[in-house]
Amino acid sequence: MTQSIRVAVSTVILTLRRTESGSAVLTLPLVLRTREPFAGQWALPGGWLTDTESPVDAAARTLAETTGLAPSYLEQLYAFGAVDRSPTRVVSIVYWALLRQDDVDAQSAAHRASGRAPENVRWFDVGELPQLAFDHSHIIDYALWRLRNKVGYSRVAHGFLPAEFTLADLREAYEAILGRSLDPANFRRQVDASGSLIPTDRFRTGNPRPARLYRYNTDVALADTGPLRPEETSIR
Amino acid sequence: MTQSIRVAVSTVILTLRRTESGSAVLTLPLVLRTREPFAGQWALPGGWLTDTESPVDAAARTLAETTGLAPSYLEQLYAFGAVDRSPTRVVSIVYWALLRQDDVDAQSAAHRASGRAPENVRWFDVGELPQLAFDHSHIIDYALWRLRNKVGYSRVAHGFLPAEFTLADLREAYEAILGRSLDPANFRRQVDASGSLIPTDRFRTGNPRPARLYRYNTDVALADTGPLRPEETSIR
Repeated sequence: MTQSIRVAVSTVILTLRRTESGSAVLTLPLVLRTREPFAGQWALPGGWLTDTESPVDAAARTLAETTGLAPSYLEQLYAFGAVDRSPTRVVSIVYWALLRQDDVDAQSAAHRASGRAPENVRWFDVGELPQLAFDHSHIIDYALWRLRNKVGYSRVAHGFLPAEFTLADLREAYEAILGRSLDPANFRRQVDASGSLIPTDRFRTGNPRPARLYRYNTDVALADTGPLRPEETSIR
Repeated sequence: MTQSIRVAVSTVILTLRRTESGSAVLTLPLVLRTREPFAGQWALPGGWLTDTESPVDAAARTLAETTGLAPSYLEQLYAFGAVDRSPTRVVSIVYWALLRQDDVDAQSAAHRASGRAPENVRWFDVGELPQLAFDHSHIIDYALWRLRNKVGYSRVAHGFLPAEFTLADLREAYEAILGRSLDPANFRRQVDASGSLIPTDRFRTGNPRPARLYRYNTDVALADTGPLRPEETSIR
């Protein structure tokens, strides 16, 4: 059985950026392609799967090579294999992760300090994406849909926020994800009902009044991968 | 970039079989391999992805060729790509579906009547699986975990049960999935809270008393594929 199909990997890395006006927006890193096809267009970080590595290892390697990012986990998002998604036949196994902005800053700074900082990586707000190579715009749409629909409070808190955070912090993260405002009282009720957050006895002093700090419930699995093996996930 | 990686597809088809004692058990079809590697062992239905078809089309084609089954949808389960999962390097994109036993019976009978009935297909209860080729035992474990953890009442009802069913029917299906008994009153409360079922004004007469018939709520998406394109799912 002879195939003319190659296997690639890509990663969708999402973080929350604090804008100058104080609001939070979802951003992700893209890489400017220097080769055909789609030379001069932006694409998700990624590359070819090699014969000797698992897909998730290839995703972690190509992400690090292009952006310097090294997330503590990557979750498989989907395998995209439509016949016409690339000029040649390519199946792309796509992974994703949510990262904290301070982790991104630290990893990016270390990457620059090492002298390997690529000039062709740039972070884009998801509402202001450039034209993308291949079907990567579609892949990002799917990742954002998964984020909006299937990721619970605990994972968003763990992925995007520091170890302790206020409910207003978490609500702002959700507002950035959903692209709309949420009622604070309803949001509080839903979070309480989810059991995914644990109140601490500490408060952040501030305006208009002190706000209780929460932490995520580590009993709730973050990336719920069940019996998948370590070499099939990046929870290493 | 030269790769020595081939892409295969497999399908996990689950149905509920009513045993002679009246209980329900999960079963799935396996195919006896006639060629190396793993000749003489059982494997999931599947085959190679060809250059001109999408992965889900290949999964539907190979499933029909081996078993005669033609589910109305297939959902992507996971892409398995560990380096050592096959003697040669193979990435398998696995799809799955829940089927009603009466649909399975009708499709299997039509397949037999067409003279193409394969002698090397057999249905196995998931608690009594034979030794399996490749990592297919692991793949089935993962499918069962997903079924137990992530599939709601509406989808189980739609996948396994006729258009109208009692809460006892649905509870029995869940008991088969979970492998344990459920408290009827608690189960009823959870189903009510899910909003995924709609009570009809019809009853099934019987012992000890008439039982209300329910139907699944078609407003609740069955396979929640979001912005995935038709050629990426089998919702055709």
